[in-house]
Amino acid sequence: MKFVCEKNKLQEAISIVQKAVTGKSPMSILEGIYIESNDNEVKLIGSDIDLSIETKLSAQIIKPGNVVVDSKLFGEIIRKLPNAQVTIETQENNLLKIHCEKSDFELSHMNGEDFPTLPTINENIFFSVHQETLKNMIKGTSFAVAQDETRPILTGILFEVDNKTLNLVALDGYRLALKRELLDTENTISAVIPGKTLIDVAKILEETTEIANITFTTNHILFNLGVTKVISRLLEGEFINYSSIIPQEHKLSLTVKKQELQNCIERASLMAKDSNSNLIKLDIQPDNLIITSNSQLGKVREELAINLQGEPLQIAFNSKYLIDVLKIMEEETIVMEFTSAVSPCIVKNSNTNNCQYLILPVRLANS
Amino acid sequence: MKFVCEKNKLQEAISIVQKAVTGKSPMSILEGIYIESNDNEVKLIGSDIDLSIETKLSAQIIKPGNVVVDSKLFGEIIRKLPNAQVTIETQENNLLKIHCEKSDFELSHMNGEDFPTLPTINENIFFSVHQETLKNMIKGTSFAVAQDETRPILTGILFEVDNKTLNLVALDGYRLALKRELLDTENTISAVIPGKTLIDVAKILEETTEIANITFTTNHILFNLGVTKVISRLLEGEFINYSSIIPQEHKLSLTVKKQELQNCIERASLMAKDSNSNLIKLDIQPDNLIITSNSQLGKVREELAINLQGEPLQIAFNSKYLIDVLKIMEEETIVMEFTSAVSPCIVKNSNTNNCQYLILPVRLANS
Repeated sequence: MKFVCEKNKLQEAISIVQKAVTGKSPMSILEGIYIESNDNEVKLIGSDIDLSIETKLSAQIIKPGNVVVDSKLFGEIIRKLPNAQVTIETQENNLLKIHCEKSDFELSHMNGEDFPTLPTINENIFFSVHQETLKNMIKGTSFAVAQDETRPILTGILFEVDNKTLNLVALDGYRLALKRELLDTENTISAVIPGKTLIDVAKILEETTEIANITFTTNHILFNLGVTKVISRLLEGEFINYSSIIPQEHKLSLTVKKQELQNCIERASLMAKDSNSNLIKLDIQPDNLIITSNSQLGKVREELAINLQGEPLQIAFNSKYLIDVLKIMEEETIVMEFTSAVSPCIVKNSNTNNCQYLILPVRLANS
Repeated sequence: MKFVCEKNKLQEAISIVQKAVTGKSPMSILEGIYIESNDNEVKLIGSDIDLSIETKLSAQIIKPGNVVVDSKLFGEIIRKLPNAQVTIETQENNLLKIHCEKSDFELSHMNGEDFPTLPTINENIFFSVHQETLKNMIKGTSFAVAQDETRPILTGILFEVDNKTLNLVALDGYRLALKRELLDTENTISAVIPGKTLIDVAKILEETTEIANITFTTNHILFNLGVTKVISRLLEGEFINYSSIIPQEHKLSLTVKKQELQNCIERASLMAKDSNSNLIKLDIQPDNLIITSNSQLGKVREELAINLQGEPLQIAFNSKYLIDVLKIMEEETIVMEFTSAVSPCIVKNSNTNNCQYLILPVRLANS
C-alpha cells in the first residue's frame, strides 16, 4: 500500500473514525484504524462492533492495499506533522512508513484482513433529515437514557417514524425526553439505538442543512452522511409504550422565562447538594413561583414571576432532572403543566410543539 | 456583621483568596474564607497556613463583624447570583444571610475568632518588581522544582537578590531553570519559597506593569500587590550552590529556531513513550540536527537546519525535559551549548540573557 495525501484531510478523516474507536478493547485490532487505498480514494474505518464509522478522502494512490494501525499513536503523529503532503507506505516486517517533509516514522501495523468486516447493508433509504436537526434531536434526548443496565432497552433512544413524523424518545424511570420533527416519508419504523453510540454520532453530524440518509435493517441502522457512513447495531426488545406515560390532560399550567427559572433552580440546588435527592420544593402561586431548599448546609428561597392558569400547587423535584431539561431547551419562554403533587410534570416550549419533557415529582412525607 | 457590596467585586475577591484555600484540610476552618467588615471595607482571607492571601473590597458597612464561611459553597452561591447588589448579614444561630434581588440564602458559618491569625509582618520593602515580570519568572522556573520530598529544599524556588539582580532558580537533579531580572536595589537576600505556593501566587499576579512590593522576614515572604497581600512561609535550609553546577564553558554551540525544534522533539517523543525514559537521540551535524527515537512502537527520524559552532556530537536526552524548557521559552531563536555526550546542555535565548536552562543528558550504554 502506498498513497500521498494532504495532512489536514487525513487528520480530519482520522478524527471522524476515531469516534468509534474505544481506547481499550479486548480485541486489540479494534484499538486500530483500518486504512485501505483503492482506486483514487483512501478509506478509513474505526469500529467497536456496536458502532462502525467509515469515511473516505481523496489521495494519490500509488499502490493499493490495506493495513490496521494503532488509532491513538497514528492520530497523534498525523496531528503533529507539518501542514503538507504526507506519504504513507507499507514496508517489510509489518512496518508502516509515514513521510512528511523532513519527518520519517516507521510504526508497526496489524493485518488489514484481520479487521472485522462491516455488516453488509443494502441501502434503502427510510427517511432523510438535515444533519443539524438530527444532531439537536439526539442532544435533546440522550441525557435522559438510563445509566444502569437493569433494563437494557432503556439505555437506548427510540427512533419512531409514523404519520410523517420522526419521534426520538428516551426515558429512565424518573423522566422522559421526546423530540419531534416532521418528515417527508410514508415509511413507518420503530427501532431502538444505543444512546452511547448516538452521542458519538451526534459529534460527527455537521451543524448544517446537509442531509443524513437513514436506512434500517433488522439489526442495524445506517446513517449515510455523504463521504462518511455510520453503522450502529440496534438494541433488541420492545421499547416501553411511552405515549401511555405522558398525561394527556393537566389541571394547571404556568408560563415562565426559561433562563430565569434555570438560574433560580441552579442556585437553589447549591443548598440541596448534601443529600442524594437534590430536593427542591416549588410553591406555585398565582403570580409567583417560590423555590426553596433546606439541608444541613442551610436554606435558600428564590422567587420569580410566572403566569399561572389553574389552582396553586406545592410540588417537589430532584433539581438535577429539572436542570438537565432546562439546559438543553432553547426557547425563551417555556410552559410547565401539572396535575397534582404526585403526578408527572410536563415541560415544553411555548411556541413550538417539537419537544416534550416529563419529570416525576418527589413524593414528600406529608403530601 | 452586615454589609452591602457589588456581586462582581465580591466574586472577584473570593476567587483571589480561594487560591490559598485547599479543598480538604485537617482543620475544617481552613476550608473556609474569613470575612471581616470594618470601616468602609470588607476584608477576605484564605489560608492553608503555608500560604495566606488577604484582599479587600469597598462596601457599604452597616455593622462591623467577622465570620468564616465554607469557601466552595459561598463562592458558588455568589458566582450564580444575578449581577446586582448583595447584602451579607449574620443572623442568630450561626447563620449567614445572603440577599440579592429575589434570592435569599441562609448558610451556617464558623466563628471568625477561630480563624488562624496571619503572621505579623513589618513591611520593609526589599525590592519591587512588575507583576507581569514576576509572573513570567515564576512560570519560567516552577516546572523544574523537585516533585518528590527526598530533599525538601528542592521543592522550592530560590529567590536570590545580589548585585542589583533578582535570580529565581529551581532544580530537581535532572535539570535546572534560572530566570534573571535587573533590579533597582542595594539589598541582598537568599530565600527559598515553596514552588506550590508560588504557582498559586503567579495565578493572582496581573499581566501588567503594576508593582509587586516584596518584603522578607526570617520565616516569611510578603507580596504586597496593592489591595491584595500574599504571605508565604519560607523553606528552611540551604539551597544548593547552583552556580557551581552551571558550566562556564562549552565546546560546541548551536543556534536553532525554537518552534521548529519543539515540533520535531514533540513528534519524536511520540515514539519514545513506551519506556519511562522518553529517550531521544540528537545527532548534531555541521548544518543539520538529526533527532531519532526507537522503541517497540517503531522508530522516527527528524531533521532540521541548525547553525553549529564547534565539532559534531551525538547526545541523548529524556525528551520531556527538553520539551518542558522549549514550551516556556518565548524567543524565536535559541542557543544550545554542549561540551560532551555526558555533560549538561545549556539552553538560552539568542538575544537576551534573562534565562538559563540546564538539562542533564542520558548516558547511553555505548557512550
